[in-house]
Amino acid sequence: MSTQISTDTDAATIDIDAANAEAFARLDAADPWVIDVAPAREVLPGFRDNLVLTSGAPMPWPAYSGGQREALIGGALFEGLATDRDDAIAKFDSGVIEVGGCHDYAAVGSLAGIYTASMPVFVVVNRTHGNLGFCNFYEGKEPRRLNYGCYDDGVRDRLRHVNEVLAPVVGDAIRRQGGVALKPLIARALRMGDEVHSRNAAASILFNREILPAVLDMAGQNIAGVRETMLHLAENDYFFLRLSMAAAKASADAMTVAGSTLVSAMAFSCRGFAIKLAGLGDTWFEGPPPIHQGKLFDGHTEDEITWMGGESPITETVGLGGFAQACALSLQEYQGGAPEVMIERNQEMYAITHGENSTYRIPLFSFRGTPTGIDARKVLDTGVLPVMDVGLAGRDGGQIGAGVIRAPRECFADAMAEHTRRFGDR
Amino acid sequence: MSTQISTDTDAATIDIDAANAEAFARLDAADPWVIDVAPAREVLPGFRDNLVLTSGAPMPWPAYSGGQREALIGGALFEGLATDRDDAIAKFDSGVIEVGGCHDYAAVGSLAGIYTASMPVFVVVNRTHGNLGFCNFYEGKEPRRLNYGCYDDGVRDRLRHVNEVLAPVVGDAIRRQGGVALKPLIARALRMGDEVHSRNAAASILFNREILPAVLDMAGQNIAGVRETMLHLAENDYFFLRLSMAAAKASADAMTVAGSTLVSAMAFSCRGFAIKLAGLGDTWFEGPPPIHQGKLFDGHTEDEITWMGGESPITETVGLGGFAQACALSLQEYQGGAPEVMIERNQEMYAITHGENSTYRIPLFSFRGTPTGIDARKVLDTGVLPVMDVGLAGRDGGQIGAGVIRAPRECFADAMAEHTRRFGDR
Repeated sequence: MSTQISTDTDAATIDIDAANAEAFARLDAADPWVIDVAPAREVLPGFRDNLVLTSGAPMPWPAYSGGQREALIGGALFEGLATDRDDAIAKFDSGVIEVGGCHDYAAVGSLAGIYTASMPVFVVVNRTHGNLGFCNFYEGKEPRRLNYGCYDDGVRDRLRHVNEVLAPVVGDAIRRQGGVALKPLIARALRMGDEVHSRNAAASILFNREILPAVLDMAGQNIAGVRETMLHLAENDYFFLRLSMAAAKASADAMTVAGSTLVSAMAFSCRGFAIKLAGLGDTWFEGPPPIHQGKLFDGHTEDEITWMGGESPITETVGLGGFAQACALSLQEYQGGAPEVMIERNQEMYAITHGENSTYRIPLFSFRGTPTGIDARKVLDTGVLPVMDVGLAGRDGGQIGAGVIRAPRECFADAMAEHTRRFGDR
Repeated sequence: MSTQISTDTDAATIDIDAANAEAFARLDAADPWVIDVAPAREVLPGFRDNLVLTSGAPMPWPAYSGGQREALIGGALFEGLATDRDDAIAKFDSGVIEVGGCHDYAAVGSLAGIYTASMPVFVVVNRTHGNLGFCNFYEGKEPRRLNYGCYDDGVRDRLRHVNEVLAPVVGDAIRRQGGVALKPLIARALRMGDEVHSRNAAASILFNREILPAVLDMAGQNIAGVRETMLHLAENDYFFLRLSMAAAKASADAMTVAGSTLVSAMAFSCRGFAIKLAGLGDTWFEGPPPIHQGKLFDGHTEDEITWMGGESPITETVGLGGFAQACALSLQEYQGGAPEVMIERNQEMYAITHGENSTYRIPLFSFRGTPTGIDARKVLDTGVLPVMDVGLAGRDGGQIGAGVIRAPRECFADAMAEHTRRFGDR
C-alpha cells in the first residue's frame, strides 16, 4: 500500500499536467472485479486479531469521540476482544486492542467503518493494475447499525447473521461465477437511476442477476441459507454500496503518480474531513468536518446530526455518487433537493475534474462521461467544492437522514501547500 | 368486451368533463396483477382453435398485406392449421382459418401481434374493476420473429421453446407467488430508467426478483427448465413489455364511460393507425399510418420501414411509454434523439391529457405524475399528436430499428365527429 514519493530534488522535473493525465488514465483504465468473500483477518494486508479499523485519517485512540468511539467499542465487543464496555475502553487505552485506519489496509469503511478480524469482506481485484480493494457487508435496513455507532444484542445478532449465513452464500456464488466484473455493472446501473453511493437499487439487483446461475445451482443442491440470502439481497437496495466502495478503492489506489494533484481518497472521521493526493502518497490532509445539506427522517432535527466517520466518498473520488447525481434524480425523495439543483450540482463538478469517465456516463447529459479525477488545483482556483451523497448519523447513534456534503476547502489548500513544498510552484 | 353505448337521446344529458373525470378516475384506480399463464385457447374469451389474431382495427383477410399477412400465415403454420404457405392462404381465403383482432379478445399484440390457440398468454386481472387483459410472450432477441413478419424453422423452434419450456416455468412461478402486482413494479421501473414500452430493462429484473422466492423453491426441487428459464429472463430486457402491455390493456378497458372523449386504445395495422374513445365503445376510428422518426440498425435504410401492426401503444394510452419518456433517457441510444428533445416531447403530452397519473411518476419532473388520459378534444384543439416509442419493422420482415411515432390527426377528427353525432356539439 505504501507509495514511492518524489523528493524535493524532483521539483524541476515534475510536469503536473502530465502527471495528472497519467493518474487520470490509470483511474479510467481500472477494471475492478469482485472475486471472493473472506474474513478480514485472512485477506486484509497486515491485519491482526486485536485490530479494529475505523474510517478517516487515522488518529490515536483518545481522539475518537461520540458515535465513532462507540462504534470502535462495539467492534471490540462483537469480536470478543473485551468482556464489556469498560474492559474494551481499558484495553484500547493500554493498546491491548489496537485502532487502525481502513485505508491503510486497502479497505474503505461505510460511516464509522468498523472492521474486526472475523468480519467477511468483499475482495475486489483491479485486473488492470493488479491491486486489491476491500469492503465489508451492509448490515441491513435497521437504522441501528454498528457503522452508525450502535451496538446492542440486535446489532450483534445481525452482524453474526452476516458472518454465518449471508456472506458464505454470497462468497460461494461469487467463486462459482469466477468473479463478477463491477465496472460494466456500475455503468449499467447509472442508466437505471443509481449513482451507486446513496442509491444502489439497480446495481443491487443487477448484481443478484450476475450471480443467479450459481445461486440456482446452489438452490438445486439445497444448500442451506441460499433462499434466505437471496431474499435478503433482493430486499436490500443498499447491498451493492459495499461493492461500489471496494471497486472504487481498488480503482483509486491505482492512481499513484508522483506530482499529480488529483485526489485519490476522501474520508472523514469524527474530527474532520481529509483527502489524499495521487502525487503525495499516503499523507492525509485534514480540514474541519464537511459542510452538509440534508433531509432528516421524521422525528429528527438538525442539531442531532453528528460526524462519526465515512469513507464512502471514495465513490465520488472515482466519478460516481455526487459526481453522477444526475443519473439518480429519485434521490430527491431520500436526501432532499430539487432535480434542477441536483443536475446543476453535477454539472458544476466538471469545473474541478481532470476529465470525463470513459465508462461511467450520464444519460441526461447525452451520455457525457461523469466528471472524474478531482484536481486540487481546480478546487482552489474555482472555489467549487466536491459534492458527496451520504447518509447522516445522529448523536445518539443510528441513521437519521441523508443528504449532500461538500469537502472543506482547507484540505485542498493544505495539500497544495505541501505539493508546492515538495515539487515547487505550479 | 362489448360496451353499452348511449344513444342520440342522451345527447342533452351528457357532461363530457364529468364523463372524462370518471374515465380518468377509473384508469387511475386500475390495479393490474398478473395471476397466471395459460394457452390462448383456454383463457381468451371466445377463442377458437382455427382463429389467428393480429394487431390493429380488425380487417377482412384480403386487406392484410406485406409483413402482417406473412405473420398471419406464419401463425397458421406454427399452429398446424395448414400444411404449407399455399394451403394457409387457401384456408384464409375460404374462411377455414379465421382472422380476428386482438383487442376483441381482451388481448394486445406486439407488432403484428399474432395469437394462435396454443400460445401461452399472461393473464392479468384488474383487481379494482375485475376485468382481464392478456398478452403473449416475447420471442427473444433474434431480429427474425413472428411478430415482425418472419416465419422459418428458427422462428418456429423459438416459439415452441416458449410454449414448452419458458411459459410453463414462468406460469408455475406466478401461481406459486399468488400473482404479482404490476402497478407498483412499473412505478418503480420508472425510477430506474424504464418507460416500459421500448425500455423494460429494470422492469424485467424487478419482475424476476418478484418471482425469485418461487423460483428458488422450484430450483430446490430440481424442476426442469427452471435454470434455463430464469437465465433467459435475466438476459432479455424486453421480457417485461408483454406484462406492461397486458397491464395497460386491463387498465384501459376499465375506462368505458358514455360520452367520454378520452382515448381508450391506440393500435395500428398494415393499413392504418386507429383509436377508440372511452365514450364510444368498441368502434375504431382509423386514419393513415403513423408519422415516424427513428433510428435504424446498421445496414438498414429509411425506405425499408414498413407497418405490419402494433398494439403496444396501449402503454401510451395509460400514461407510459412515450408519455414517460423523460424517465428513460437511455433510449436516445436505441431509438435516436437528444435528451432535450425527449424531455420536451414528454412535457408536451400534458397539453393533450386529462390528468396526471397518481402512481406513475417522473423523477426528472419532481415526481410529477405522467400525463395520462389522452383527450381527443385537446388533440384537435392543440394540434399536438400523441407520441409513442416503438420498434420499427423492415419490408422483408424482422426488426430494423426503433423510434418514435405520432398518431395521425385524422383518427381524432373522425372520433370527435362521431362523438358530436351521438352526443351533440361539445
